[in-house]
Amino acid sequence: MALSDPYQRRARVEYDAFGSLEVPFDALYGIQTTRALSNFPISGIPISKLPDLINALAQVKKAAARANARLENLSLDKAQIIECVCDEILSGQHHQHFPVDVYQGGAGTSTNMNMNEVIANRGLELMHYPCGSYAHLHPNDDVNRAQSTNDVYPTAIRLAFLSALPRLEAALAQLAQAFHNKGSVFAEVLKLGRTQLQDAVPMTVGAELEAFGSTIREDIARLEGARDLLHEVNLGGTAIGTGVSTPPGFQVAVLQELSELTGQPLKPAANLLEASWDTGAIIYLSSNLKRVAAKLSKISNDLRLLSSGPRSGLGELQLPKVQPGSSMMPGKINPVIPEMVNQVAFQVFGNDIMITFAAEAGQLQLNAFEPIMCFGIMQSIMLLTNAVETLRVQCVEGIEADTDRCLQNLEASTANLTALISTIGYERASQLANEMLRDGTSWTDIFSTLSERASK
Amino acid sequence: MALSDPYQRRARVEYDAFGSLEVPFDALYGIQTTRALSNFPISGIPISKLPDLINALAQVKKAAARANARLENLSLDKAQIIECVCDEILSGQHHQHFPVDVYQGGAGTSTNMNMNEVIANRGLELMHYPCGSYAHLHPNDDVNRAQSTNDVYPTAIRLAFLSALPRLEAALAQLAQAFHNKGSVFAEVLKLGRTQLQDAVPMTVGAELEAFGSTIREDIARLEGARDLLHEVNLGGTAIGTGVSTPPGFQVAVLQELSELTGQPLKPAANLLEASWDTGAIIYLSSNLKRVAAKLSKISNDLRLLSSGPRSGLGELQLPKVQPGSSMMPGKINPVIPEMVNQVAFQVFGNDIMITFAAEAGQLQLNAFEPIMCFGIMQSIMLLTNAVETLRVQCVEGIEADTDRCLQNLEASTANLTALISTIGYERASQLANEMLRDGTSWTDIFSTLSERASK
Amino acid sequence: MALSDPYQRRARVEYDAFGSLEVPFDALYGIQTTRALSNFPISGIPISKLPDLINALAQVKKAAARANARLENLSLDKAQIIECVCDEILSGQHHQHFPVDVYQGGAGTSTNMNMNEVIANRGLELMHYPCGSYAHLHPNDDVNRAQSTNDVYPTAIRLAFLSALPRLEAALAQLAQAFHNKGSVFAEVLKLGRTQLQDAVPMTVGAELEAFGSTIREDIARLEGARDLLHEVNLGGTAIGTGVSTPPGFQVAVLQELSELTGQPLKPAANLLEASWDTGAIIYLSSNLKRVAAKLSKISNDLRLLSSGPRSGLGELQLPKVQPGSSMMPGKINPVIPEMVNQVAFQVFGNDIMITFAAEAGQLQLNAFEPIMCFGIMQSIMLLTNAVETLRVQCVEGIEADTDRCLQNLEASTANLTALISTIGYERASQLANEMLRDGTSWTDIFSTLSERASK
Amino acid sequence: MALSDPYQRRARVEYDAFGSLEVPFDALYGIQTTRALSNFPISGIPISKLPDLINALAQVKKAAARANARLENLSLDKAQIIECVCDEILSGQHHQHFPVDVYQGGAGTSTNMNMNEVIANRGLELMHYPCGSYAHLHPNDDVNRAQSTNDVYPTAIRLAFLSALPRLEAALAQLAQAFHNKGSVFAEVLKLGRTQLQDAVPMTVGAELEAFGSTIREDIARLEGARDLLHEVNLGGTAIGTGVSTPPGFQVAVLQELSELTGQPLKPAANLLEASWDTGAIIYLSSNLKRVAAKLSKISNDLRLLSSGPRSGLGELQLPKVQPGSSMMPGKINPVIPEMVNQVAFQVFGNDIMITFAAEAGQLQLNAFEPIMCFGIMQSIMLLTNAVETLRVQCVEGIEADTDRCLQNLEASTANLTALISTIGYERASQLANEMLRDGTSWTDIFSTLSERASK
Repeated sequence: MALSDPYQRRARVEYDAFGSLEVPFDALYGIQTTRALSNFPISGIPISKLPDLINALAQVKKAAARANARLENLSLDKAQIIECVCDEILSGQHHQHFPVDVYQGGAGTSTNMNMNEVIANRGLELMHYPCGSYAHLHPNDDVNRAQSTNDVYPTAIRLAFLSALPRLEAALAQLAQAFHNKGSVFAEVLKLGRTQLQDAVPMTVGAELEAFGSTIREDIARLEGARDLLHEVNLGGTAIGTGVSTPPGFQVAVLQELSELTGQPLKPAANLLEASWDTGAIIYLSSNLKRVAAKLSKISNDLRLLSSGPRSGLGELQLPKVQPGSSMMPGKINPVIPEMVNQVAFQVFGNDIMITFAAEAGQLQLNAFEPIMCFGIMQSIMLLTNAVETLRVQCVEGIEADTDRCLQNLEASTANLTALISTIGYERASQLANEMLRDGTSWTDIFSTLSERASK
Repeated sequence: MALSDPYQRRARVEYDAFGSLEVPFDALYGIQTTRALSNFPISGIPISKLPDLINALAQVKKAAARANARLENLSLDKAQIIECVCDEILSGQHHQHFPVDVYQGGAGTSTNMNMNEVIANRGLELMHYPCGSYAHLHPNDDVNRAQSTNDVYPTAIRLAFLSALPRLEAALAQLAQAFHNKGSVFAEVLKLGRTQLQDAVPMTVGAELEAFGSTIREDIARLEGARDLLHEVNLGGTAIGTGVSTPPGFQVAVLQELSELTGQPLKPAANLLEASWDTGAIIYLSSNLKRVAAKLSKISNDLRLLSSGPRSGLGELQLPKVQPGSSMMPGKINPVIPEMVNQVAFQVFGNDIMITFAAEAGQLQLNAFEPIMCFGIMQSIMLLTNAVETLRVQCVEGIEADTDRCLQNLEASTANLTALISTIGYERASQLANEMLRDGTSWTDIFSTLSERASK
Repeated sequence: MALSDPYQRRARVEYDAFGSLEVPFDALYGIQTTRALSNFPISGIPISKLPDLINALAQVKKAAARANARLENLSLDKAQIIECVCDEILSGQHHQHFPVDVYQGGAGTSTNMNMNEVIANRGLELMHYPCGSYAHLHPNDDVNRAQSTNDVYPTAIRLAFLSALPRLEAALAQLAQAFHNKGSVFAEVLKLGRTQLQDAVPMTVGAELEAFGSTIREDIARLEGARDLLHEVNLGGTAIGTGVSTPPGFQVAVLQELSELTGQPLKPAANLLEASWDTGAIIYLSSNLKRVAAKLSKISNDLRLLSSGPRSGLGELQLPKVQPGSSMMPGKINPVIPEMVNQVAFQVFGNDIMITFAAEAGQLQLNAFEPIMCFGIMQSIMLLTNAVETLRVQCVEGIEADTDRCLQNLEASTANLTALISTIGYERASQLANEMLRDGTSWTDIFSTLSERASK
Repeated sequence: MALSDPYQRRARVEYDAFGSLEVPFDALYGIQTTRALSNFPISGIPISKLPDLINALAQVKKAAARANARLENLSLDKAQIIECVCDEILSGQHHQHFPVDVYQGGAGTSTNMNMNEVIANRGLELMHYPCGSYAHLHPNDDVNRAQSTNDVYPTAIRLAFLSALPRLEAALAQLAQAFHNKGSVFAEVLKLGRTQLQDAVPMTVGAELEAFGSTIREDIARLEGARDLLHEVNLGGTAIGTGVSTPPGFQVAVLQELSELTGQPLKPAANLLEASWDTGAIIYLSSNLKRVAAKLSKISNDLRLLSSGPRSGLGELQLPKVQPGSSMMPGKINPVIPEMVNQVAFQVFGNDIMITFAAEAGQLQLNAFEPIMCFGIMQSIMLLTNAVETLRVQCVEGIEADTDRCLQNLEASTANLTALISTIGYERASQLANEMLRDGTSWTDIFSTLSERASK
């Protein structure tokens, strides 16, 4: 945990149903967060490393305070204080007070309570009360009013995903554009097309690169589709989707507020009970991230293969030289950027399996494993975004085609014979191909021979 | 291979660029299929076990013959013979002549050539020529005219998926309906809701079962969405999407014919080169099948848990008794149907990983691993369809609720206290809960005590 | 199911605690198998497709009969009849009477009961009683005496694995030998070594192929290690490992008999309770199969890459030409055998995930999902065995090196400069490399220049 | 990156074959690390987060310096300086100078060069030269002398694993002991055993917990076995295992030094070429970590199930209450520690898939994806170690059995009837079971009735 030593001054003591506990003097979190800190000393990665989640949660709390106030379920004073603290958090303040580990049991309760406690304590500060004097502003009864982790957490993680996805989509769009641009530049460069690593038929370097752009654009559309599913939230359902302890009209009011605050077109879940345990939208999103990763890994494999050599490989593309390739072999340059992308893709594949396990393991009215799903998705989006950006800037935008090599490879192959099959038939063309390979003749030789015969 | 002994009569000899080979006398396939048989003695599962694929391929061949004829790229006589054979295959004939293993190298070429050869030989029979006399009707030059495995195979597997999916969707719809029906029957049965396996708040058996129906209905919508992606095909692209060796207008013509034959609203791929190697639609479909599997596995877990006991478990549901549960323990009945569904789900998860590996491994202008993707998807759809059907008939439709047990479990719990938190606050309610658990009192005791105090 | 129509003659009626049911007249199985047939119409793959499992189960039954007889827990007459039927099954008879689907709920009970019923009914036939007259020989009380599916099934699947593994190990050993042989043949053929697809330092074709042999030999050792874990069985533990209903001395006696029958050095599980639910040995075996698959897939990738071209790829190896590579492109030959191996590897990766899910899902005193684990392991072993055998016969044994191409690729590269770094330093060598690549000089030019300078 | 602002003072300029670059004034790393920083802005996790790796690498460098000096391949002065810096690093100094991202292309070259540069620059400081004046101590020619990333990196990651594994093994041993201790305490507490979530036969709480200890002890043995494979290293192989640029005797000498420094019984790889690309030992280790995770997840599932309720679930175990379970539901306590363990297990499963992808993707003479394998393994070990420790301290050591509930569940079930089947037969016992379940009688009733009849 990155907090400065909290025991410089005397710790304060807080109480809950389990007894009392010391809380660091200057901590805005309280006793429940403190318990979570000793319960989950697992990865050392605090939830504050997921600012999209912290902000999403603050937005939920703000919306709930406004809805509660509107429905006279919370005093206007308290609501305004809560809103005020949420705004501070949304402006980037207090994030260091969210130290709970991302690997946490409890279905997100520790994350929710961390937020409830920080808002309460910061609110108390603003009201000139000491931290921990929850009689004036209570984490559960006021900040969490008409809410349960069961609805707050699933809603907040969806908002966090919605907040992070546009960054990935933008990076992908720029990468697609970079491939498109390169495609235009090399539109006329003839080269050999290959299937199953064997010489096939002629094509152009431009078409090859343009195809990468096309495939990425399709993925952007899929990610946009995934957002629709994320817009459906179970806020207002509280415990297991029953809406217990909410005042009449709360679900409508809080979604209205939250939609306005976030600019997202949120919809109430069709079946609140189902929405409390269902993680279909998360599986769906993870699957689409995996799809992006599979495409990027395929593209990276191709870039590495096409730039192999430089002399004794295919050698048709030259990737930008970004660092020496070896601690020992002089002059060696490696395709380190695509290699990095491959590894990010493998991580995303692993995360998808992790999320499948977590989704399958949900029981009865709740899925207790949403924290790891949240972490996995946020990590996949972040890694993909950075990898895509790096791939574009450090690699794709600097790709050059070796036009001589491209032509040489094309001419050496039997690739042009296919164009003849509608004229001379598959079997005759196959014979010619075998002759070429046996005698070392090139297709231009063949073609002139055929033309000669034809003209006779 | 299930063919009767082919050597009862003398084998015929066929020739190709590699030399000659004996082909069973009565085989409609030819030399290339024979080579594939010795190259892939892997699983013993022939492609004829995937009738959707055989039929889809026949439809592609028929459409191509019609388009070729229309464009005067093939004689009308030959086209009609090809169509005629395709119709025989579509009516279920000749499927035993497709013995190539589903685990095959070659990116589907062996499957495509198996079809080309069967059509050619059966056509020759109809024309009263001996099998193998391909001068009169050639597998490559006539049947495969203006086609390449590169476009035929990806198109055919998409059609096969489109053909199999409605069966799964229908089975899912019936299962959702069965849950809905049971939900209505038990709409009034009060029970305890649980989160994280711990007693939470009251709900009804009906709502619990209805939620299963809701979640399945969402999956049907996703599968329908996956069909849109499958409608985009690369037929007409031939080798690597260049359209080499097709006559002008072929792509439009063949898609028109194929759409008409299949009743599917097929669309030409936006980028033919990309469509030749891209497997995004397959990843997408597999992901959605995995999503279905995750939901079904979760539901099965719940059914097993809710029916646990019968005496010393939760015991709230009774599943139909379909077979004795033990070779040894008297009277034991096990939830064997949900257990089977779990295992089918695990297989689908495994298939999704297999498909991810295959998709990622595609190189340059083609993905050579589509055969295993095809097999994996077809197997997942088939297993899910049968499992869903069995789950409905042998389990869900016969579910009974133990209303006494449900009420007893509810009353024993502290579940109703949550309703009090907006009145007495979280901390006071927590104290009451602790007292209940310590003293063994029920919530009705607590409630009357509170009422008494309130009335004083 | 492949049985001939069982209703040609009148079905017999059998009874159990659930009521009565018609059983096909000529079926050796009975009422419980019949129930299982209607409960699991899932894949159409009967357990008879796993003859190793059928035989292993028969061996367990035979050993149990002998142990029971020895301990006077079963009459000698009945024991001899049971043994006799087991011998028939072990000689390959009656396998068609095991129609239960491999995807089955019930933790293997249906498989165990299928065996109990077949033995009882075939025993009754031998005793000249009608099938189904279990008073004379009872599936549960006699054939299953002192046994439970809880111990019989985990023991039998381990024996099945032990029976199938040597076939894979032998195939791997032959493949390793084939690589070794080829390594000897090409021991002197110089070629370029590559890291990260970039030209690195010189090596030989022989060393490259020999390394494939070495890595496979390491895997054989791992598989042999896995057998040790499989030797530990829970037979004698009956229900949940308590040994309930076994006579004193049964565990020792039955393991003695079974060890003798199978020739396997079986050991009693250290903790019978744990051994009843633990699937650690299965995870371990699956992991090692996955390791084999990863190696084979890597080797296949390399073979495809090294033989790429034939003209415009690396082209250093020539794989045997086993079938025409394209329905359209003349003369194209593809590396179809390695491509098949890749796909088998992907299936094994998928199976490993399936098994991980199944292992993790075990609850309390038993893992109900062993049937799918059994199927997955048996399928992985079978596919790998066939793929390895095919890879050797159809590919590796016919590999040729293109020595000219190898030398040409080596000479074109900067690979030999590394040998100079201890003399001239990394930076100077890097400069030379850059000059070579810029000017198109070969390393022999460089070397002579350096020698000239040195000699001055 | 956690470094303090490096531009407080003027940056220094360094040069390499690519040109010049500014390096932060106070950075001990140099130009190549600086390039890597701009090439891999991916996760924000620097390799310094893997101190086992940093230390292992320092040990390799120290051993190489000693071996080089011994063989007169490096001046004694330089060797001593290198050793001295390595000792500083091993004492925990300078770790902040390893900022390269764990997601990096280049097969570990950036990590190796980061170490080479830090040692060179710190050595220069000690020699009173300015950082970057590599003529006096060169990262490549001196620190990396007779080494290549190809052998240094695979060796170092193995040492890092060997360094981290004992911590996990120790934590597992303590957990096993904790289960064993609890097993002793509750050795006499009778309870119901369950298979497939259905009431089975009697057992004790002690035996159930002891079995968890047994299964964990088996895993410790497997991890110890994995260490043997890790002892085989390819150091001395340099580029692709050829040993190019090493002086005679180097491999023997450096392994001798490294074994002594680390206390590990290192062995030279049998086939250096194979060892340069093979990742079998990593797959093997990952698989065994997955096995540990599967066991822990199963145990956690059981703990959650057995403690379910507290009133309306099984309720046989009470886990320590470590934090309030809900932001809303009063008195609710959740099994948050086991839930956390489940999620760690899911992460380890995901990492295993990531590693499988990375292992399969290796090409030709090197696997470029070892950095992600290293990160995945180190993360899995770290998470498992912390999760196991937390599970023991916060959960297992405080487990209590509810003996009344255990007995009540046992008595309500038909579990004791199994003991009767050898006396009264399976069918009669099944009838009794059905009567019990129908009439609500307990097995003691049944037993007395049977005894009465028997005594008549």
